[in-house]
Amino acid sequence: MSRKEFRTLADPEEVRAAIDGLALGGGTETVDLRAARGRVLAERVDAEVDVPGFDRASMDGYAVRARDTFGAGEAAPERLALAGAVHAGEAPTVTVDPGECAEVSTGAVLPEGADAVVVVERTEEIEVDDGTTIEIRDAVAPGDNVMTAGADIAAGSRALGAGRRLTPREIGLLSALGVDAVPVRAAPRVGIVSTGEELVRPGEDLDSSRGEIYDVNSNSIAAGVEAAGGEPVVYPHAGDDYEELERLLRTAAEECDLVVSSGSTSASAVDVIYEVIEDRGELLCHGVSVKPGKPMLVGRLNRADGGQSAYIGLPGYPVSALTIFRMFVAPAIREAAGRPEPASATIDGELAVEARSESGRLRLLAVGVADAGERRLVYPVDKGSGATTSLVAADGVVPIDPDTDYLSAGESVTVRLFSADVSPPSLLGIGEDDPAVDRLLDALDTPRYLPYGSRAGLARLRDGLPDFAVVAGPADDVDAVSVARWHREWGLVVPAGNPADVSGLADLVDRDLRLVNRGTASGLRTSLSNAVAALADDRGVSRHDIVEAIAGFESAVDAVETPARRVDDDRGDAGLGLRSTAERLGMEFVPLGEQPVELLVASDRLERSAVDELREAAAKLPDRCRSVPGYRFGGE
Amino acid sequence: MSRKEFRTLADPEEVRAAIDGLALGGGTETVDLRAARGRVLAERVDAEVDVPGFDRASMDGYAVRARDTFGAGEAAPERLALAGAVHAGEAPTVTVDPGECAEVSTGAVLPEGADAVVVVERTEEIEVDDGTTIEIRDAVAPGDNVMTAGADIAAGSRALGAGRRLTPREIGLLSALGVDAVPVRAAPRVGIVSTGEELVRPGEDLDSSRGEIYDVNSNSIAAGVEAAGGEPVVYPHAGDDYEELERLLRTAAEECDLVVSSGSTSASAVDVIYEVIEDRGELLCHGVSVKPGKPMLVGRLNRADGGQSAYIGLPGYPVSALTIFRMFVAPAIREAAGRPEPASATIDGELAVEARSESGRLRLLAVGVADAGERRLVYPVDKGSGATTSLVAADGVVPIDPDTDYLSAGESVTVRLFSADVSPPSLLGIGEDDPAVDRLLDALDTPRYLPYGSRAGLARLRDGLPDFAVVAGPADDVDAVSVARWHREWGLVVPAGNPADVSGLADLVDRDLRLVNRGTASGLRTSLSNAVAALADDRGVSRHDIVEAIAGFESAVDAVETPARRVDDDRGDAGLGLRSTAERLGMEFVPLGEQPVELLVASDRLERSAVDELREAAAKLPDRCRSVPGYRFGGE
Repeated sequence: MSRKEFRTLADPEEVRAAIDGLALGGGTETVDLRAARGRVLAERVDAEVDVPGFDRASMDGYAVRARDTFGAGEAAPERLALAGAVHAGEAPTVTVDPGECAEVSTGAVLPEGADAVVVVERTEEIEVDDGTTIEIRDAVAPGDNVMTAGADIAAGSRALGAGRRLTPREIGLLSALGVDAVPVRAAPRVGIVSTGEELVRPGEDLDSSRGEIYDVNSNSIAAGVEAAGGEPVVYPHAGDDYEELERLLRTAAEECDLVVSSGSTSASAVDVIYEVIEDRGELLCHGVSVKPGKPMLVGRLNRADGGQSAYIGLPGYPVSALTIFRMFVAPAIREAAGRPEPASATIDGELAVEARSESGRLRLLAVGVADAGERRLVYPVDKGSGATTSLVAADGVVPIDPDTDYLSAGESVTVRLFSADVSPPSLLGIGEDDPAVDRLLDALDTPRYLPYGSRAGLARLRDGLPDFAVVAGPADDVDAVSVARWHREWGLVVPAGNPADVSGLADLVDRDLRLVNRGTASGLRTSLSNAVAALADDRGVSRHDIVEAIAGFESAVDAVETPARRVDDDRGDAGLGLRSTAERLGMEFVPLGEQPVELLVASDRLERSAVDELREAAAKLPDRCRSVPGYRFGGE
Repeated sequence: MSRKEFRTLADPEEVRAAIDGLALGGGTETVDLRAARGRVLAERVDAEVDVPGFDRASMDGYAVRARDTFGAGEAAPERLALAGAVHAGEAPTVTVDPGECAEVSTGAVLPEGADAVVVVERTEEIEVDDGTTIEIRDAVAPGDNVMTAGADIAAGSRALGAGRRLTPREIGLLSALGVDAVPVRAAPRVGIVSTGEELVRPGEDLDSSRGEIYDVNSNSIAAGVEAAGGEPVVYPHAGDDYEELERLLRTAAEECDLVVSSGSTSASAVDVIYEVIEDRGELLCHGVSVKPGKPMLVGRLNRADGGQSAYIGLPGYPVSALTIFRMFVAPAIREAAGRPEPASATIDGELAVEARSESGRLRLLAVGVADAGERRLVYPVDKGSGATTSLVAADGVVPIDPDTDYLSAGESVTVRLFSADVSPPSLLGIGEDDPAVDRLLDALDTPRYLPYGSRAGLARLRDGLPDFAVVAGPADDVDAVSVARWHREWGLVVPAGNPADVSGLADLVDRDLRLVNRGTASGLRTSLSNAVAALADDRGVSRHDIVEAIAGFESAVDAVETPARRVDDDRGDAGLGLRSTAERLGMEFVPLGEQPVELLVASDRLERSAVDELREAAAKLPDRCRSVPGYRFGGE
């Protein structure tokens, strides 16, 4: 294999400088004011009209010559003859001569002659022989209760400067000026090209036997581009073929200000991209000393007209791609779109567990954040390269500088939240994968639950990390309070009709049948081990003998439904699982026992209000689980 | 006049409770994942497929049986026969038997027989007689460098809970699951009806003589609805006619979850709305004890099918309407759309000047915020009811409770910013309205300049409020540093061709000509007064005699171009103004003198970095103003 090695990695500052040097659009376009929210003014807007356009009554009342009211008061009212009325939206047909007044409503044009308004509350209408007289019980000065033409903003005045972000308030002012279209910074067009033979568009059929996976980056990067103020243009994804990639990148370069590819994770595809950029543009950086994210490219792509578009190549793994996008690309798009950098959203906390880093590269450690009463705990979220669930299980990153290779538990760290509006989950739970827990979570506001198994739940509870753990089986030696307890029926899930006629564990030992087992972290595995031990005792053999006789015992899967699904998929004869799973999937169930499951809240979290919600939800759980077969609440 | 009086105003909590009781939609709709950013999941999404869907090589290298590598290391390599290769996106055609390996690229399906991958860096390819052999220099355990099927997320597992806001990260995870359409909370449809005979749509022609004004609320409230997660539907605005309003509100009620009207500011229109709601629905609240905002309505409107839509009536003045919308309506729309309340954005500061409030009502005092080095200053921004410029001159509000009627200067206050991403201006300036200042502002990042005149600039500079003031005329007795100085030619702006043949101030005194003057806060007015004094001395008369002889001397306008524009509009014969204004508007100029203008920075702000930017911009001002006629930089 020949591969491009990223031996000399650029440091983040060099990459930033290279990206700063790319031109990412920055033009101007005119948009309808109705569609302008969130956009950024490209040019200063001056008022072209006076606002208001006329001397305007700002209260309901009577337009007067102020001079006529001098000395008027509650005790000494002045009487003025009513000459007529002016309402908002009509041209005055009346003139106010000395000794006269005119009824005006708020917003009306002040009639000629008048220079002030007396509010209606300080007047009284009196019928007299020759018409109507108004008793004025207030002295006003010229201009009182009148907004003179241009007093709000005068024609020719600077109204809003370039660079101003348009919120409902700016849109209001522009409306007042009669503006219905505004020049705004053009959103840079960002072409998105995912590469990899294995990619399939979400919504289409997937052939896993060919190693196909859904294309994650096209959608997530497009959403990121949009959030940064760019206009994403998603291109079909491309394989590793030079011709195809070259054609696609050339098209994207013609149509966009910036082309962002996300490399296939294999080095061979990176090679091809590399080659295309070198042949059809110029490469400014390759490789950045950030983890995750090493295989990053920065350059330019030539256009037919002699111009160039900017080009940035992201790594293929979704977490890496989004991390690099967020760190380097989003700021450049915001800059081009004239959007302000979002307020830096950082929070401090202490590491709940130790963290290791590879020295020599800036590590962006994906972490979750948990509130532990007074303290705020930060824990790494890392299911390994390529895991997409890390995308949503983390709240932000802790940058670990290249000289640091170890952070101990308890160390203070600063978390850079993914965005200012990320709010860490209200509750953190760790433990058994269980359908009742899913229903519990549905009843909570913003929980986070890591289904890492009963063993992990207990261990982390002892470490002081989660608010609660869900433990199937014994839960000793832990400073926690049980807030709910249920039993679930466990056993072997077999295909509908039970074709192999499995009746119990002994069949797996004695016959040529294949088990799909769960991992050792799971409480179900513990129950199975106990059943194995009992069978060994019965038969007077060692447990090892029994285990050795069960094909598939040692290779295990992580999730509660997976063994059943594998069996359904003809990849085993019996799967360790729950009655509820069997019924949900239309399969058959061979019961082996009932297992207690407990919801344990850490004693030091009992005062948290989110824990009150958890207790309430737990109290309603029997109701919510009424339709789940094989579940029993209360009792022993 | 008969009017609805809002005698018993509801307090804010009652209004909130009434709005909480309205049903504002809250349904579910399915949207394309590409259009789902920012939306909120309406239902839990479980994984329907394993991710990955197969045991996946997570590194480039060689798929092996781990057992075959036991004991291998740099010093003691194992040799395995190369049985073939598997690349990402292809079905394996090779099986790894004991003693064999297969080349795999990252993302490839692990071939049958293999259970681990040795990374390429720990291997070497060796050509041997009967094919290729791979030297393995690393011992691996089963599962090393492999992501097993479902290890990221397994089919049947809970992926995302209802209520989750969809960011690029969630969109990434959903893509990985193959989801291309998601159930999200339906955006509540919000009908917007502005009422008032005087309203004209922005972009259309305005007849000021009829008291017409542009409709501000339709656009600003629509933008507010959108920002809160609703779908705005803007209806034509309506006059005060019962039939018309009733028809419009009924249509809106049929089509929308919530109808928001903004009342004409006149009480008569409120009366009509009031009547329609009582006839065609039910009124729950009328009037709220908040200032600004008193005339608010909450109720329901009947639909033909017997159902009802929610109804909220806002005051007519744009600042009041948006204040009440932000306080009561936006939270209800966010709630219905499932959007989280934005992080409360408050900042503390000290009042720069005293503030008075009417007792008995919660006052939401619109304020601007200025950074004064260590201190943060808060100053009221209030150009009076109905001023739309207050919309953009303020950064937030200071709530003043109903029992407080006075806050002294220096008092600590908490400002509720209009939104979390409001960042107060970098610089605050107050002073003369001057075209050179506009160009200076264009060169700054996010300045705020209040063109309240030289006198106000000096006074506020002495109070310690602004960073800088622009003063035309003398600027003594102030602790500030001059960072720029220029001269501007001032005089009388007359119509093109100078039809009245005005040659100087004496013409205004001696002939029947009408002046349009500036206010006393303006430096131009001071220069004019000096010229009046000089003329009086020349003639041996009192200043008063001169002033009395000039028609229009006492009625003044606020902005620099307004006198000229009034003259152009035939509303005067000569306007006090600048040569630059005359040339810009294609009018003629009668020079009366040259006036010095100074840009003064408060001594205690000299260390601010924004002031450095101001100095830089000031240094370039002569260049920027090269084309402005009548301006001279430097010299005396």
